[in-house]
Amino acid sequence: MYQQLIDIFLKLSHIEHAITFLQWDQLVMMPPQGNEKRSEALAELQAIHHAIVTDQKTADLIHQPYDLQSAEQQRVIAEMKRVWERATCLPPDLIKKKSLAGSRCEFQWRSQRSNNDWSGFLANFKEVVLLAREEAQARANHATQDYSCSYDAMLDLYCTGDSSSMIKAIFKTLKEELPALLSHIASRHQTRPVTPTGVFPIAQQKLLNDALIKILGFDFDYGRLDESTHPFSTGDFGDQRITTRYTSDEFTQSLKATAHETGHASYESGLPSHYAGLPVGKARNSCLHESQSLLFEKQILLSQPFLEFFTPTIHQYLPDTQTYNANRLWQAMTRVKPTYIRVDADEVSYPLHIILRYEIERDLINGTLEPEDLPEVWDQKMFTYFGLRTADNHRNGCLQDIHWTDGSFGYFPAYTLGALNSVQIFNAIKRHYPDWQTRLLAGEISFIRAWLTEHIWSIGSLLDSQELIQQATGERTNPGYFLDYLKERYLDEAN
Amino acid sequence: MYQQLIDIFLKLSHIEHAITFLQWDQLVMMPPQGNEKRSEALAELQAIHHAIVTDQKTADLIHQPYDLQSAEQQRVIAEMKRVWERATCLPPDLIKKKSLAGSRCEFQWRSQRSNNDWSGFLANFKEVVLLAREEAQARANHATQDYSCSYDAMLDLYCTGDSSSMIKAIFKTLKEELPALLSHIASRHQTRPVTPTGVFPIAQQKLLNDALIKILGFDFDYGRLDESTHPFSTGDFGDQRITTRYTSDEFTQSLKATAHETGHASYESGLPSHYAGLPVGKARNSCLHESQSLLFEKQILLSQPFLEFFTPTIHQYLPDTQTYNANRLWQAMTRVKPTYIRVDADEVSYPLHIILRYEIERDLINGTLEPEDLPEVWDQKMFTYFGLRTADNHRNGCLQDIHWTDGSFGYFPAYTLGALNSVQIFNAIKRHYPDWQTRLLAGEISFIRAWLTEHIWSIGSLLDSQELIQQATGERTNPGYFLDYLKERYLDEAN
Repeated sequence: MYQQLIDIFLKLSHIEHAITFLQWDQLVMMPPQGNEKRSEALAELQAIHHAIVTDQKTADLIHQPYDLQSAEQQRVIAEMKRVWERATCLPPDLIKKKSLAGSRCEFQWRSQRSNNDWSGFLANFKEVVLLAREEAQARANHATQDYSCSYDAMLDLYCTGDSSSMIKAIFKTLKEELPALLSHIASRHQTRPVTPTGVFPIAQQKLLNDALIKILGFDFDYGRLDESTHPFSTGDFGDQRITTRYTSDEFTQSLKATAHETGHASYESGLPSHYAGLPVGKARNSCLHESQSLLFEKQILLSQPFLEFFTPTIHQYLPDTQTYNANRLWQAMTRVKPTYIRVDADEVSYPLHIILRYEIERDLINGTLEPEDLPEVWDQKMFTYFGLRTADNHRNGCLQDIHWTDGSFGYFPAYTLGALNSVQIFNAIKRHYPDWQTRLLAGEISFIRAWLTEHIWSIGSLLDSQELIQQATGERTNPGYFLDYLKERYLDEAN
Repeated sequence: MYQQLIDIFLKLSHIEHAITFLQWDQLVMMPPQGNEKRSEALAELQAIHHAIVTDQKTADLIHQPYDLQSAEQQRVIAEMKRVWERATCLPPDLIKKKSLAGSRCEFQWRSQRSNNDWSGFLANFKEVVLLAREEAQARANHATQDYSCSYDAMLDLYCTGDSSSMIKAIFKTLKEELPALLSHIASRHQTRPVTPTGVFPIAQQKLLNDALIKILGFDFDYGRLDESTHPFSTGDFGDQRITTRYTSDEFTQSLKATAHETGHASYESGLPSHYAGLPVGKARNSCLHESQSLLFEKQILLSQPFLEFFTPTIHQYLPDTQTYNANRLWQAMTRVKPTYIRVDADEVSYPLHIILRYEIERDLINGTLEPEDLPEVWDQKMFTYFGLRTADNHRNGCLQDIHWTDGSFGYFPAYTLGALNSVQIFNAIKRHYPDWQTRLLAGEISFIRAWLTEHIWSIGSLLDSQELIQQATGERTNPGYFLDYLKERYLDEAN
């Protein structure tokens, strides 16, 4: 019986493999006219996947009382149950309505955003919110754990295992400290250089990014680096696909995206191979996933010693950058400046963008805020946290993100939990390797990969997220490390 | 009922879409370590496909007595039946044994060929032949048509609709004329130039091949050109994937491969879109498919007027080729010289390579030749047709091709039927457009594509192959056009 259940999940993983790489191809390789047949094929595979998940045989096997001695086997079962419950707890009718409303809202948003068309967006968005409330309620009703509100069931999809009370407390701490800290740092940074602009041939930038990804320990026998409109990473065991984005007038964004996605891909490639295809062998949650990408981007690439090591390589491939030495480049690449746009935000501002969205989406889902009131609340909170106003500037306000357009409420907090985890985890690495700066100055990354493999990547989902972080760093997620790090990086007189 | 059957075949086509693009990725994009999971996913999709095909519900629907008024609907059903019968007529046990024996033989052949290891190969090959005889017998037993021998059932897989008696008669004609013609042309060609060698940067060659494929009318909104070890093309409606192969010391091979695969891809992209996903909407047979690739390679690219038009583009991207003017390049690219190796053969030699293989595989499958005797028969026939000996030179003799290693007997004749069809079809185009040379000299291809769309591509499988050729060219496949063409191209004093 146990083996039968395993076999079903392995079969599902093979279909997921096909979906994963067909979607990668759709975003990276496929010509425009391929979309119709590709969409049909993907819908077919998703229907086949759904039919297996919702098959009575699967339900029967899931509900067997397995008498397993080993704690690890119990974990294997528990994670399969979690995945199965999430996949089956929504009424098929709701799934369909949500998919239709989400597709419509997202598709029209693409033009509504540039047209600053709030009322056009609102017409579609109201239904998305109504259906998301239904979804949250259905998920909360089916959950084995107790949620204090229905939003928590959405949050748990991404922050699995990180309790909403913990997140609430962490965000409270950040909210108390960050606005003043941001304002202070930003005023000091006004005189900092901006990143170099010029004409940087994309063929050369590609060679530079290939060089970076190899230094970061990514092995091209186990994956690829390509180009797409929005950088992302995806894949399966043995084959991680990373993308980045190039523009010819700026080169630092591609390096940051490449480092960021290399972190995601490295986590995936370090997951326990003997559990490949099973839920227990998957990455723990989005808060940990984002911690790995941010660790590679902010803690490695944007560390002073690593950038000192890497700057000659930048000069080699892009000779026009030689007017920037390593320190000037570091100053430019870590410049803090409040902005309207989350994706452009520095790491001091970023959590405030997230907290703003968290507070709004929580109230939207719990029904204490109506979609109509979104622009006003957005404007108020932007002023409180950043001193910026967005009244009537919807395109740079509440219309800027794609997440809510298709009803993906609950994801945003993972970005900031990830930022906190990345600093706390890198802190543990620093303690373990007091010579970390010397190593990074020599371009050595293997000690970091080895530590992460042992303490994070190879754990997969064998531990709950906070158990994992506790075991790896000595304590649960603690915002103190993040706040100390910001002060050290941005307020130390030398910087 | 009719619609239910249609829906099943559309579902199958979606799974085939997934298999097609995952296999393309495997050959073109996938890093080496991705192979394990990819193979598992492909096997899963093939099993899902097989389960639908062999489902009792499908069998019941196939065997319904459909009362359809329209001849076209009857055709839709007939082609579904053909596909279904081919997919279900073999015992599952035989399919499995054949797959295992074929994989083993092909895998070991890769080293055995370079080691000239006939006896090692024979050990595996005997079983492949035994199972292929079983397969041919089973296919012949299940067929609705009468075959004169079991080999004909294998031949029909690829030359669908072209009768074995017609093929036999055509090959007889070619055998009578070609050896003397080849010897005569080859002696005249001894003084011809060989193709340019040098250092041709692959980045430049890629730009040149992109330019060629666009001139040939391939639209990058509907497909891609990439690189792989062996050139091939594959895809689905709206998305044709072509590959070619580059070497830095020679550039004409990549151009020929690109033109060849563009012909295959153009046929696929011109199939009737309203039958997309159904057997009736597929390419008619391999003899027609090869005719389209050869038409683009030999009749367009290697025509004197087109090469006259294209040579300045070659000079532009590869300036070192300027020592070859258009005529010298044409002379070099169409040089006739007997060789041991089929894939390197000129178009005069090629049919003799095919007839040799046809005669041998026919006797192997029908049981009148044993695998042990293969090298001796090969040597005899090579001497008769080319005046070359291959005794003990197995690597350049009977070990050179991949086709038989996994039991794909019956494909070879399609190459030569394709060559004949391509000349006969191009002849019809020439008659319809007496100014064809002026048009090609101006790089105009659209008139050829329009004619092929109307007479070949848009027909799909709505006609039998010889009906299609008759309707398009005024008569059935006739080797006279091919022989006349060879004489005109290679014996005309001006050439």
